[in-house]
Amino acid sequence: MSVVAAKGYVASGVWAAVKGSGKPDLTLVVSRRPAAAAGVFTTNRFKAAPVLISARRLAVSGGRAEAIVAISGCANAMTGEEGLRDARAISRRAARLLRIEDCHVLLASTGPIGMRLPVSRVMRGLGKAVRALSDTEAAGLAAARGIMTTDTRPKQAVARFRDGSVSFTVGGIAKGVGMLAPNMATMLAFLTTDAEIVPSRLRHSLAEAAAASFNRVTVDGQTSTNDTAFLLANGAAAVRSLSAQGIRRFKGALAEVCRALAYEMVRDGEGVRCVVEIAVKGARTAGEALKAARSIADSPLVKTMFCGRQPNWGRIAQALGQSGAVFNPDRVRIRVAGEKAVEGGRVIAPHFKVLTGLAEPHVEVEVDLRAGNSRAQVLGCDLTERYVRINAGYLS
Amino acid sequence: MSVVAAKGYVASGVWAAVKGSGKPDLTLVVSRRPAAAAGVFTTNRFKAAPVLISARRLAVSGGRAEAIVAISGCANAMTGEEGLRDARAISRRAARLLRIEDCHVLLASTGPIGMRLPVSRVMRGLGKAVRALSDTEAAGLAAARGIMTTDTRPKQAVARFRDGSVSFTVGGIAKGVGMLAPNMATMLAFLTTDAEIVPSRLRHSLAEAAAASFNRVTVDGQTSTNDTAFLLANGAAAVRSLSAQGIRRFKGALAEVCRALAYEMVRDGEGVRCVVEIAVKGARTAGEALKAARSIADSPLVKTMFCGRQPNWGRIAQALGQSGAVFNPDRVRIRVAGEKAVEGGRVIAPHFKVLTGLAEPHVEVEVDLRAGNSRAQVLGCDLTERYVRINAGYLS
Repeated sequence: MSVVAAKGYVASGVWAAVKGSGKPDLTLVVSRRPAAAAGVFTTNRFKAAPVLISARRLAVSGGRAEAIVAISGCANAMTGEEGLRDARAISRRAARLLRIEDCHVLLASTGPIGMRLPVSRVMRGLGKAVRALSDTEAAGLAAARGIMTTDTRPKQAVARFRDGSVSFTVGGIAKGVGMLAPNMATMLAFLTTDAEIVPSRLRHSLAEAAAASFNRVTVDGQTSTNDTAFLLANGAAAVRSLSAQGIRRFKGALAEVCRALAYEMVRDGEGVRCVVEIAVKGARTAGEALKAARSIADSPLVKTMFCGRQPNWGRIAQALGQSGAVFNPDRVRIRVAGEKAVEGGRVIAPHFKVLTGLAEPHVEVEVDLRAGNSRAQVLGCDLTERYVRINAGYLS
Repeated sequence: MSVVAAKGYVASGVWAAVKGSGKPDLTLVVSRRPAAAAGVFTTNRFKAAPVLISARRLAVSGGRAEAIVAISGCANAMTGEEGLRDARAISRRAARLLRIEDCHVLLASTGPIGMRLPVSRVMRGLGKAVRALSDTEAAGLAAARGIMTTDTRPKQAVARFRDGSVSFTVGGIAKGVGMLAPNMATMLAFLTTDAEIVPSRLRHSLAEAAAASFNRVTVDGQTSTNDTAFLLANGAAAVRSLSAQGIRRFKGALAEVCRALAYEMVRDGEGVRCVVEIAVKGARTAGEALKAARSIADSPLVKTMFCGRQPNWGRIAQALGQSGAVFNPDRVRIRVAGEKAVEGGRVIAPHFKVLTGLAEPHVEVEVDLRAGNSRAQVLGCDLTERYVRINAGYLS
């Protein structure tokens, strides 16, 4: 169970013929009662129509929503006024079928950029999707499948917490990063909880959890036009606000779900063989720690090194050295897979044990800049020939 | 002719057994008379021993040098105090053999990071290299070959200019970008002229020319620990300073040589099938224009698109949209291979003609942000499976 694990939610995932493959491409997530809602969106200056519409709706409603309509197989990005009209028409139809306010529908899309939505097919699909709505495990799984593009498996996560005598749930589904093939992609995550939380706090909680999870993963360093995470809170488990301790526990559960989904996204990134976890400490500022971690995570030379399982530690130092973080190169310490890699301005000859570590599906890189007290962590991955094949269109 | 095209220079390239392959790995470039000298170096915080030594020598001498000693097959980077000692020993031996001051020897290295130089072999090679010094075309070519790593061809360029009745020459050799395989790389360029130019002006001219050429190319966005460009000016063609017009012509010739070498570097980048020229105009500032051009040039999705010859213009917009440059997405215009690609916030369906353009070895991307008057240009390339194979170590 996932996006329907929390009380008071139903979901579905059906095929509306947006994708030619016959695989699910239309996902609905509906709260049985009006819910507080929050969203985080792509920072790309080119924002897809559903991003523009959803961000505006959350702003105008002050953070209220009842349904999420998500389409995979078409990003509805860079489609101009027509794209906005298409998205609004779909939203209106969904609202009518669900008997809710149009402005309480949130939208998301993922897929090729620059293509118009096949609106009439989506309209027909909506009827099917509404009829299929259910709170069963199968319906949650169908919803997770309905947002997949180049993902090879559905991504779901659940966490529970207690506040006093009441048990609450946070659940979610997501789809992977890696932008487009030939143009498929986008990161989407839909999260639900049955706790009662005011919109302003919900917004803050989601921003905080996303910053520590979705915004700390990278497959290719590319920010899509459609990246979206929604969080709904409907209070179905108990119609009273959480205690201060309950809120802390809610944040913990939310962070856990976001981290699990983010990890799955990287693990299932395009062509990925291994996840590379970069932890930087000893930076002068948190910003420099993050720059250093990202510079290593996004270096094609570091990424191909992990693809080839080569212990070329100089590449990690080189990526770190161009990150803009300030440090003394003679003091930096780097460990890879638990073994010393760089120390005293020198590359340490790799111990044979490290080759076993490099063959694992999860490799840890620990950097100590020894220049301050700030730290940051980023989840990256290797760069394989398969990534190139997927994105050169050879596999599509 | 290239690095010995200008009067008063000799060069050689020999095998000193640094590389196992038997290919040239030791290059000498010597001015027959003391010359003004300038250098530009990597901005990476981890700097190789030859970079640290050469930068210091140029600073202390106020910009004088007589010889360049370059080794390929070993970067002598991240080798600590021992690496500095190795480089100094080689410099001393070269100075003795050439009968010049040790402090007038400039050093450069390229190859695997973290490996010590085989000093005794280099010492023996130096004798051979000094005996082979010559101003013939063959010697210039040997010097160009002696700095190659994963380059598939030597890179040479020459330009001439007149000042009054005297003809002057600027020549150079370079090696390609693309960092390491398993760790091979670095951009090196050695330039010579027979004009008489004071060190301060030489420094300024080289910095300007490098900014518009070497610093505007990218194969994988990675700044090596060893990047170095040297420029020597020995006044052998005429022992008098250039006129104001002569200086302008010198700068023009230098820019031409640097641009030609930089172009060759990208064209011969690791696994490169096509050069992608990104020209951004209409930016608010030159910095934003450059950020926008680099963001497109370094996007793995744009690069794999050109590898697959796919007209997925949305990827160019997406990379532009995350660059940090400020613009109105509805006003931006993008052309690819001379055809409209993005306009009015929409992707334009690709005209069939564009597919022919995408198959060429040089593709132009023109971006008009329509937000100001600044512009920038960057030379990039595609990302192929071969790049991954080379850098994953599968080909080494």
